[in-house]
Amino acid sequence: MHSTAHGRSLIDTLAAITPASPEAMDQATLRQAQLTKPPGSLGVLEDLGIRLAGIAGVCPPPLPTPAAVGIFAGDHGVCAQGVTPWPQAVTVQMLMNMAAGGAAINVLARQLGATTIITDVGVATDHPDHPAVRNRNVRRGTADLSVGPAMSADEALAALQIGIETAEQAIADGARCLLTGEMGIGNTTPSSALVAVFARAEPAAVIGRGAGANDQMVATKTRVIAAALALHQPDPRDPLAVLAAVGGLEHAALTGFILAAAAHRVPVVLDGLIACSAACAAVAFNDDVRGYLISGHAGAEPGIQVAVGHLGLHPLVDLGLRLGEGTGAVLALPMVEAAARVMSEMATFESAGVSAS
Amino acid sequence: MHSTAHGRSLIDTLAAITPASPEAMDQATLRQAQLTKPPGSLGVLEDLGIRLAGIAGVCPPPLPTPAAVGIFAGDHGVCAQGVTPWPQAVTVQMLMNMAAGGAAINVLARQLGATTIITDVGVATDHPDHPAVRNRNVRRGTADLSVGPAMSADEALAALQIGIETAEQAIADGARCLLTGEMGIGNTTPSSALVAVFARAEPAAVIGRGAGANDQMVATKTRVIAAALALHQPDPRDPLAVLAAVGGLEHAALTGFILAAAAHRVPVVLDGLIACSAACAAVAFNDDVRGYLISGHAGAEPGIQVAVGHLGLHPLVDLGLRLGEGTGAVLALPMVEAAARVMSEMATFESAGVSAS
Repeated sequence: MHSTAHGRSLIDTLAAITPASPEAMDQATLRQAQLTKPPGSLGVLEDLGIRLAGIAGVCPPPLPTPAAVGIFAGDHGVCAQGVTPWPQAVTVQMLMNMAAGGAAINVLARQLGATTIITDVGVATDHPDHPAVRNRNVRRGTADLSVGPAMSADEALAALQIGIETAEQAIADGARCLLTGEMGIGNTTPSSALVAVFARAEPAAVIGRGAGANDQMVATKTRVIAAALALHQPDPRDPLAVLAAVGGLEHAALTGFILAAAAHRVPVVLDGLIACSAACAAVAFNDDVRGYLISGHAGAEPGIQVAVGHLGLHPLVDLGLRLGEGTGAVLALPMVEAAARVMSEMATFESAGVSAS
Repeated sequence: MHSTAHGRSLIDTLAAITPASPEAMDQATLRQAQLTKPPGSLGVLEDLGIRLAGIAGVCPPPLPTPAAVGIFAGDHGVCAQGVTPWPQAVTVQMLMNMAAGGAAINVLARQLGATTIITDVGVATDHPDHPAVRNRNVRRGTADLSVGPAMSADEALAALQIGIETAEQAIADGARCLLTGEMGIGNTTPSSALVAVFARAEPAAVIGRGAGANDQMVATKTRVIAAALALHQPDPRDPLAVLAAVGGLEHAALTGFILAAAAHRVPVVLDGLIACSAACAAVAFNDDVRGYLISGHAGAEPGIQVAVGHLGLHPLVDLGLRLGEGTGAVLALPMVEAAARVMSEMATFESAGVSAS
């Protein structure tokens, strides 16, 4: 048996992933046409409802509630290159702010009824124990990916297993929808690098301002990522090696979190660039993962557009967020719930005695 | 005193509308910069939070809960011209479906905690009394606006007063956010006509497929609206006359509903084309109404884009809906609530001990 103390192994997780059910999606397509609305008039919610049926393998699909946001925190050696205006200490400060319930993700998750599961998977700075923070620190931040590998393959695998364990625990606790969250000063740089590798894109096409980089920092990010790709020559067919070379600990954990959601036929709503880059890694591990992904928020980062194009996804909302944390995923959650609810709660033309056109 | 048995008069309502508070908006702008997030990183939610402070005249703004959707149903004589594939009887059938809780708006309002207030303001067909339907029928559908006025000015005023009364009752019952809803087969045609008048746009620029018109019906709609505008020569400075000439009973009611929300400093979230056309009428009555409007959903109708441009609004979401009923407003409600919540619930850099960049 391939298993760890705390969750299914990566190998078993990958083996458990099957495509979304075409039969359930066919049934859902028929059902959409019977509901009391003009055909197609619920727009993307109709497609989403059909996809939710495929994910669960049943029509109408179950409600995606309760929902849980997996928030993984890590630090990044590449900050030494000047890729962000924020001091690295902000990662641990924001981790503690999240633990205390004062960050944007806490406010939005409370409003929308989602649980937050906060995990230190690679923060660089000491911090006091807090009951709301799971301590799974694999290493104290990555090394500078522009001068060597961000971490070892074993470390990437350990972080990935933590993501699997986190998702499995959330599902065991009742979660029927998983959302991706993260915290890590500098983590748009490894995210852009991952998207460049998996979507085979030029660095300049996947780089943006993150949470506040100026023009010079954007130029630095582009140079740093180009140098890292030249140095590591990462092979997109070996996603674990790619994560180790140019990823981050939260990226590896999110990859495992996404893979486990797919293995358990639970929809996973992606936040912004960091989540999208991890989803690219997850799809590189197993292409059937695509069917379980929902893009929550479009966002301002050019890399998101490249990644969702690569993944074949269409973001549900675009509120111009560039905060991360999981905020864009949580704000899309009502749309996901709505897509499922209309399929089980709306009347049909026949049941309501309404004439079809 | 200008008052009716059931609500403030139009004249008193207009007199009670004041601009959104610049002082509260200034305070809100300062507060946004103190919250634990990179400046501007909550995108349009930041602007919306500032606008909510201006609407209520206090910072942080109160939560927009509970919310109530005012759904006004009416019929349209212009259906005789072949502007829609749906038989007119669907208006009353869907009214009864809404009363029974089986329509999309019922499902979404239940999910998102909004009350529905369903009012027959101008349905053409007999229907049994139902405890969930308020009977305020002004006339049994409008006349064909392409051959004469849709209704008299007195009828338009009566419908408008019903909208005022509905909003005031909802606010008296505790609503702190109003959402617009409607039902009326054929009602995109008067809506496009209203937008053309108030935004001074060409008919072809404001006409779309409604809930399912084909190419021929779109051509018919364009011809019908051009003919109506040539016939009535409506003056956008006289919005009551415009509503009477080319509007609908639900349009007039929604106009009153919106005016009363503004008079009571309550935000009003607009659904699609019908609501946007009523908002254009409301702004023609009093320009300060602009400050109280929130555009919920972009939608597929070209007239929405023209109207929101005229109103200076930016729709919060775009899910490709073309259903109406209030669905696009209700789906935007979590964004409105989020914009308010972050302002009152997020930690500040100082309170959380987080370094600013």
